[in-house]
Amino acid sequence: MEKWIGVVGGVGPFAGIDLLGKIAAQTAVSLDQDHLTVLNWSQPGTIVDRTEFLLGQVAENPAFALAQQVVQLAKMGAGVVGIPCNTAHAPRIFNPLRAELAAARCDVRLLHMIEEVGRFLQEQLPGVKQIGVLSTTGTYRARVYADVLEPLGFTAVLPPITLQTEKIHPAIYDPVYGLKACGVATQQAQENLRLGLDHLKAAGAEAVILGCTELPLAFAEATAVGLPLIDPTLILARALIREANPAKLKPL
Amino acid sequence: MEKWIGVVGGVGPFAGIDLLGKIAAQTAVSLDQDHLTVLNWSQPGTIVDRTEFLLGQVAENPAFALAQQVVQLAKMGAGVVGIPCNTAHAPRIFNPLRAELAAARCDVRLLHMIEEVGRFLQEQLPGVKQIGVLSTTGTYRARVYADVLEPLGFTAVLPPITLQTEKIHPAIYDPVYGLKACGVATQQAQENLRLGLDHLKAAGAEAVILGCTELPLAFAEATAVGLPLIDPTLILARALIREANPAKLKPL
Repeated sequence: MEKWIGVVGGVGPFAGIDLLGKIAAQTAVSLDQDHLTVLNWSQPGTIVDRTEFLLGQVAENPAFALAQQVVQLAKMGAGVVGIPCNTAHAPRIFNPLRAELAAARCDVRLLHMIEEVGRFLQEQLPGVKQIGVLSTTGTYRARVYADVLEPLGFTAVLPPITLQTEKIHPAIYDPVYGLKACGVATQQAQENLRLGLDHLKAAGAEAVILGCTELPLAFAEATAVGLPLIDPTLILARALIREANPAKLKPL
Repeated sequence: MEKWIGVVGGVGPFAGIDLLGKIAAQTAVSLDQDHLTVLNWSQPGTIVDRTEFLLGQVAENPAFALAQQVVQLAKMGAGVVGIPCNTAHAPRIFNPLRAELAAARCDVRLLHMIEEVGRFLQEQLPGVKQIGVLSTTGTYRARVYADVLEPLGFTAVLPPITLQTEKIHPAIYDPVYGLKACGVATQQAQENLRLGLDHLKAAGAEAVILGCTELPLAFAEATAVGLPLIDPTLILARALIREANPAKLKPL
């Protein structure tokens, strides 16, 4: 029995749309009617910024609004749900989110994007050990990737803190040139991210995780500075199809 | 009071995602939280092909499944709804759809994409009179655009029937090279569409409506063969924002 896919789509809106596009593109179809049922709930106004919460700049935990939207998707019929926001998978957000779902007796299958990335790396890049991570400062400070990857035998390679806060985070968040405001990669955002990639390569990274769901919007190619780029949105899209109906998942 | 936008997203899935992207891109924002609430219900398996119905190849009218999805979106909280499928606006589909909504006492505001295109042409291209239309064969046979544009003083310019059925419709529907199957414009689809554009230009068209929501996926530029391209998906996106909260609509 094919499950319906639910997407919490507003974190951020362009990242949610990118996920929907990757779900459709990774589904084996020849007709409209072959596509999976996908419900997308994008209500970004209610979800406070994940990094601001993790850094103590706002008190409200976005876990509650996220949980409410997962519950809505489950009520509408979703059988498996994904949240295309890396920072939302920080334990200080994701654990209370899961507790909220349990309290609401919502037993929908909620995928954990970061664990899916870890599984993907083990299966697809078994020889690689040093994994660079570009992300928001919330994901960086909360060690979202490091804490999942290190028990699997990988080493997470992160930029130094000044490069992180002065170049990488603004490439995502700057209200004038950032990916969230623009929906496309401005030249300034590209330059900032290039500095990050160069640093991660020099520090020994053998592959780089685009560890914020806005970052894939800035990269059309599967590699940069000679390193494979790992796209968690694509991995989440494939995991959602696998859970909904594995027979419709295109080969990698 | 800002309205929530509902999108019937599976007709086809890539067209629905294109609409979501255009809604986000046309909204004036600097933060995730500024974006409008958008609910997207993509359940393409339940909606029979609109052209096949109009040509008598299937008996079931897709109006009923479309109406059910509009009702679902309204129940979830949508205050204005769009259906990103030109062919679904043929009167033989759209009229019973409206009747179904009335019978269900669903008074959500459902926009009429084709009428929005007519309004756009009057406002933005007042000097243009001959409007070329590329579309599915369902939209073509049902005179979806001609019957809206002609009372407004425009002349609809259509390809001859053999070019329509042998080149234009397959560019959208072919299971191997068509836009619906591939989600991107293959070379064969591009060649077919170019034949259509050349014909419309030779026949006197001064602008061309991309009158199937898959067609904008094939055109990155705002013009082709020297003619302005009219994108009904973009017009619908802007109309949805206008109805949801006009203060957030970017200038053209």
